[in-house]
Amino acid sequence: MSKSKVGNFFEDFSLGQVIRHAAPRTVTVGDVALYTALYLPRFAVQSSAAFAQAIGYREAPIDDILVFHFVLGKTVPDVSLNAIANLGYADFKFLAPVYPGDTLTANSEVIGLKENSNKETGVVYVRSTGKNQRGETVLDYARWVMVKKRDKDAPVGPEVVPTLPKSVAPADLGKAVPAINVAAYDKDLAGSPYFWGDYEVGEKIDHIDGMTVEEAEHQIATRLYQNNSKVHFNQYYEAQGRFGKRIIYGGHVISLARALSFNGLENAFHIAAVNGGRHVNPLFAGGTVFAWSEVLDKAEIPGRSDIGALRLRLVAAKDHPPADFPLTTAEGKPHPDVLLDLDYWAVLPR
Amino acid sequence: MSKSKVGNFFEDFSLGQVIRHAAPRTVTVGDVALYTALYLPRFAVQSSAAFAQAIGYREAPIDDILVFHFVLGKTVPDVSLNAIANLGYADFKFLAPVYPGDTLTANSEVIGLKENSNKETGVVYVRSTGKNQRGETVLDYARWVMVKKRDKDAPVGPEVVPTLPKSVAPADLGKAVPAINVAAYDKDLAGSPYFWGDYEVGEKIDHIDGMTVEEAEHQIATRLYQNNSKVHFNQYYEAQGRFGKRIIYGGHVISLARALSFNGLENAFHIAAVNGGRHVNPLFAGGTVFAWSEVLDKAEIPGRSDIGALRLRLVAAKDHPPADFPLTTAEGKPHPDVLLDLDYWAVLPR
Amino acid sequence: MSKSKVGNFFEDFSLGQVIRHAAPRTVTVGDVALYTALYLPRFAVQSSAAFAQAIGYREAPIDDILVFHFVLGKTVPDVSLNAIANLGYADFKFLAPVYPGDTLTANSEVIGLKENSNKETGVVYVRSTGKNQRGETVLDYARWVMVKKRDKDAPVGPEVVPTLPKSVAPADLGKAVPAINVAAYDKDLAGSPYFWGDYEVGEKIDHIDGMTVEEAEHQIATRLYQNNSKVHFNQYYEAQGRFGKRIIYGGHVISLARALSFNGLENAFHIAAVNGGRHVNPLFAGGTVFAWSEVLDKAEIPGRSDIGALRLRLVAAKDHPPADFPLTTAEGKPHPDVLLDLDYWAVLPR
Repeated sequence: MSKSKVGNFFEDFSLGQVIRHAAPRTVTVGDVALYTALYLPRFAVQSSAAFAQAIGYREAPIDDILVFHFVLGKTVPDVSLNAIANLGYADFKFLAPVYPGDTLTANSEVIGLKENSNKETGVVYVRSTGKNQRGETVLDYARWVMVKKRDKDAPVGPEVVPTLPKSVAPADLGKAVPAINVAAYDKDLAGSPYFWGDYEVGEKIDHIDGMTVEEAEHQIATRLYQNNSKVHFNQYYEAQGRFGKRIIYGGHVISLARALSFNGLENAFHIAAVNGGRHVNPLFAGGTVFAWSEVLDKAEIPGRSDIGALRLRLVAAKDHPPADFPLTTAEGKPHPDVLLDLDYWAVLPR
Repeated sequence: MSKSKVGNFFEDFSLGQVIRHAAPRTVTVGDVALYTALYLPRFAVQSSAAFAQAIGYREAPIDDILVFHFVLGKTVPDVSLNAIANLGYADFKFLAPVYPGDTLTANSEVIGLKENSNKETGVVYVRSTGKNQRGETVLDYARWVMVKKRDKDAPVGPEVVPTLPKSVAPADLGKAVPAINVAAYDKDLAGSPYFWGDYEVGEKIDHIDGMTVEEAEHQIATRLYQNNSKVHFNQYYEAQGRFGKRIIYGGHVISLARALSFNGLENAFHIAAVNGGRHVNPLFAGGTVFAWSEVLDKAEIPGRSDIGALRLRLVAAKDHPPADFPLTTAEGKPHPDVLLDLDYWAVLPR
Repeated sequence: MSKSKVGNFFEDFSLGQVIRHAAPRTVTVGDVALYTALYLPRFAVQSSAAFAQAIGYREAPIDDILVFHFVLGKTVPDVSLNAIANLGYADFKFLAPVYPGDTLTANSEVIGLKENSNKETGVVYVRSTGKNQRGETVLDYARWVMVKKRDKDAPVGPEVVPTLPKSVAPADLGKAVPAINVAAYDKDLAGSPYFWGDYEVGEKIDHIDGMTVEEAEHQIATRLYQNNSKVHFNQYYEAQGRFGKRIIYGGHVISLARALSFNGLENAFHIAAVNGGRHVNPLFAGGTVFAWSEVLDKAEIPGRSDIGALRLRLVAAKDHPPADFPLTTAEGKPHPDVLLDLDYWAVLPR
C-alpha cells in the first residue's frame, strides 16, 4: 500500500471523530508582506506596528482572513480533498489576536454526517479550531462540505445534522481585540472619519475599485496557506475537468473583497465573526473582482464602550462594477456575476 | 452620500493645503524578500546584514527605491487617483536610512496649482515627505501630476508654479549614509573593483541584461506598495481604456532599471537624490526591460571623505538591447523604445 | 572598456582558481514565506518554529533546497553565465543548519577543466562552498557545467577531470541535524506515521499531486535566489533562442518535486546530501509537474540512533501523472516526459 494519501471520502468520517491536522505553521512578517502584495489591504491596525501599539495591541496583528486561510488550509488534506462543494460556514469566531512568531495548529471534530440520496456524496459537518503555540484558541468555526464517497455501496451511519446558530451573538464578539484607546486612534492615518456610530442599518457602500486576478497570483496565495486542494494548481487535470481550467480558491475572493472594502469601511479594522457565507459562483483567472457592502445590523458589544459591531453583507462580483449592488436577478435567483455573499460582524471604534 | 472615495479632482486642491496620508506602513524583511524576488537587486549593502554592519550601517537598510514606492503609494489615493500623467520629480532627497521594523507615514503639501487651457485638467504640484515612527524625515520630494477636473466650469484659484532646483546640490547628498568604513568594504563581495574615482564623466555603461515583465509581477509589486492607482489592476476597465490593457506602474520600471544597473555600477550602493525623471513611454506586460547609464557629473560631498557622488542618467528601454544607448531619434525626439529617463545622484565609496 | 560583465568563458578559467562570489545574502523569514508560496512545502520542521524547537532545533531551519538555491545563485555570474548545460552534481553535502538572520556567502574552486573536441565549449568542474557569517560551511558540492569558449582558437591548459564519489557515505550525513528528541516528534502534526524503519528498499511512492508553473512564478523564484542566468527572464532574446521561450531554472523543478514528495515522505524532513542529479528535459511555463520516489537504499548513520537515512530517487515528470513511475522508454532511453532524476539522501526519525 502506498504511503501517499488521496484524502478521506465520505464513508471514512465518523461522528465525534477528532482529527489533528498536519503542517503546524509559524506565521511571520514574510506572510504579512505577501498578503499585502496579493490583495492591497490598507487597514492601519494590520499595516502599522506603530498604529496598532498606539491603540492597545502588542504589535500589528495578523489579518483575520489570513489566519482563517492558514487554519482552513490545514484542514483541507483531511476534510475536503475530495469535496466537490464548500457548502457553508457558521458560528465562526476570532477569539484571540495572532502575531508574527505565533505558530498555528488546527483540529477538526466531525459534528454531522448526512449521506445524499444519490449515495455518491454526503455532507460532512466539522467544527474546526485553530490554536496558537500556547494552546489558546484563535479561531473556531463550523463548516460543511459535500464530499464524494469512494464506494457508492459503502454503508454509512445514521444521519446527524448539527444545529448551528444563524448568527454570532454580540456578546461573543471582540474577544480578539484588546481594550482600544480610541483617543489615540488617528482617523487621518486610518483613512476615514467614520466610526461605528456613523453607519446606519440599510446603508450600502460601493467599494468602487476592481482587481483582476492572474493564475500566478491565486496559486501563490493558495500555496502560501498550504492549502493543497487539487483544483487550484493542476491545469493538466482541470483541462479535462468541469470548467476546463483551474478554479480559484474561494478564500482568495474573500480576501480581495475584504481588501476592496477598505474604501468606505476604513475603520472596520477587525472581523470578529462570520455568520454565514456562500461562494455563489466560481472565479477564474482573468476575472476582475469588485465588491460592495450593506450594513445589516448594528450592535453594542456587552462590556465594551471602546468598540461596536456592524453586521455587514459583503458581496463580490465579477466583471461587474458594483454601483447597482448586484445580488439577485429579477426572478430572485443569484445574480450570475456574483461570486461571494458573506455575512459577518466587523468591529469599529466608537 | 457614499462613504467610499473616488479621489480628489483638480478643483479639490488648494495652495498650502497639507494632506496627512492614510495607511501607515511598517516595513519588514518580508517586503525586502518580495522586492528581491520582483527585481533581482544584488547590491551588497541592502542584501547582506553582515556586509552593511561591517561598513557602518546598523543593519541592512531598505532599498531606497522601495522606500520611495511606499511613500508614493500613500500619496496616490489623495493626490493622483485622478491623474492622467505623472509629469515630473524634483529636489528629491533621501535623508535617513530606513530599517526593517520602521513605520513609514507620508504627508503632502500643495505647493503649486496651474489649470490647463482646456479647463479639463490642471497640474498639481506637491511636496511629499516620508517620515519614520520617530518623526524623522526619510524622504522629501516635489512631484507634479496632471489631474482631471470633476467639473470643467469649477472656478479655480490663481496660477502658482513653484520654483524648483534643476538638481540637488552635493552638500545635500549622503545624509542617509552613516560614516562608511571603506577599509571594511569588501569589493569581491560587492562584485566590482570600481569605486567613485574610477568613473569618468561621459562614460556610458550598457547594463546588458533584460527582464521580461508579467502581469502578475507588476500587480504584486504595486499592491505591495499599497499604491491603489486604478490603471494597474483593473483589466475590466482598461480593456475599454486608452491602451486596451493595464499600464505598468512607472516605478516598477525604475526598480527594474536600478536592479539591472548593478552590472557595471555594483558599488553605487545608495541613491542619494533624484534631480529629475520622466516616464517617456508606458510599459505593458510582455515587454522586456533593458537599461543603460551615463555618468553626467562627479561630485565630492562636503565633509565626506568616505563617499563620493556620481550624477547618473539611467535610461530604460523596451525590447531594445542597450548597446547603442537609445535615447532620442535622429530628429531629436524621444526614442520610441525608451521607457524612462532618470537623472539621479548615486553614492559610492571612495 | 565597459565596467559591466558578460561572464566568464571556458578559456577564462584556470585550474585551482578560487572565486569569491558577490552578493552576500541575509536569509530571512521573508524568503521562507516566498518559498512556501512558490512550492507549497509542508514539512513540519521547516514550517513550524514550535515543532522544530520541540525536537531540538534552535528554531525552524531554512529549507535545504532554498539554501542550495542561494548558494548556486551566487555562483552563476562567475561560473555559468555562459553555460549551455548544467551537467551534474556530486559529493553534495549540507553541513550546518541555516536559520533566518544568517548571511550566506559562496566561493568556488575550479577543480577540473576539459575542452570539448569541437573546441567551441568545454566542461568546467567547480567545488562550491556556502558559508554563514561565522565562516561555517553550510553546503559543499561539486558541479560541472558546459561553458562556451569566447574564441574557438584560444589555447587552453591540459585536461583535468576530478575523481568524484558516486555517492556520499553515511558517515558524512546528518551534520546539519542537531540531536533529535524523537519522543517529542509529533507524527500527527508531521502528517505521517512512517519513520525510517517503515520504508523498504525498492519501495516506490506516487506523490499524486501536480503543480502547473506560470512564467511569473519561476521568474519570482529565480530572482529571489539572485540567480541572474540569462535564459530564465528574457523573452526578447529567448524568442529567438533554442526553444523560442524562457527556460525554467532547473532548481525550480527540484523544489517543486521535493514539495510534492511530502505526500508519502512527510517525515523525511531533511536532505542530507545529493549523490547525483540530472535535468533530463527542460520545463516551460504551462507545464504541470508531478513527482514520484523510489527508495534506493537505507543506511544507519554512524553515531546517530535518533535519525536514519534513506537514499531516494526523486523523479519529476511533466504532464504525466506518476502512477506508472515514468523513467525510461522501452528502448532504455530517458522518458520524454521526465524532467529530473535526482539521487539524494534524506534523513528521517527512527
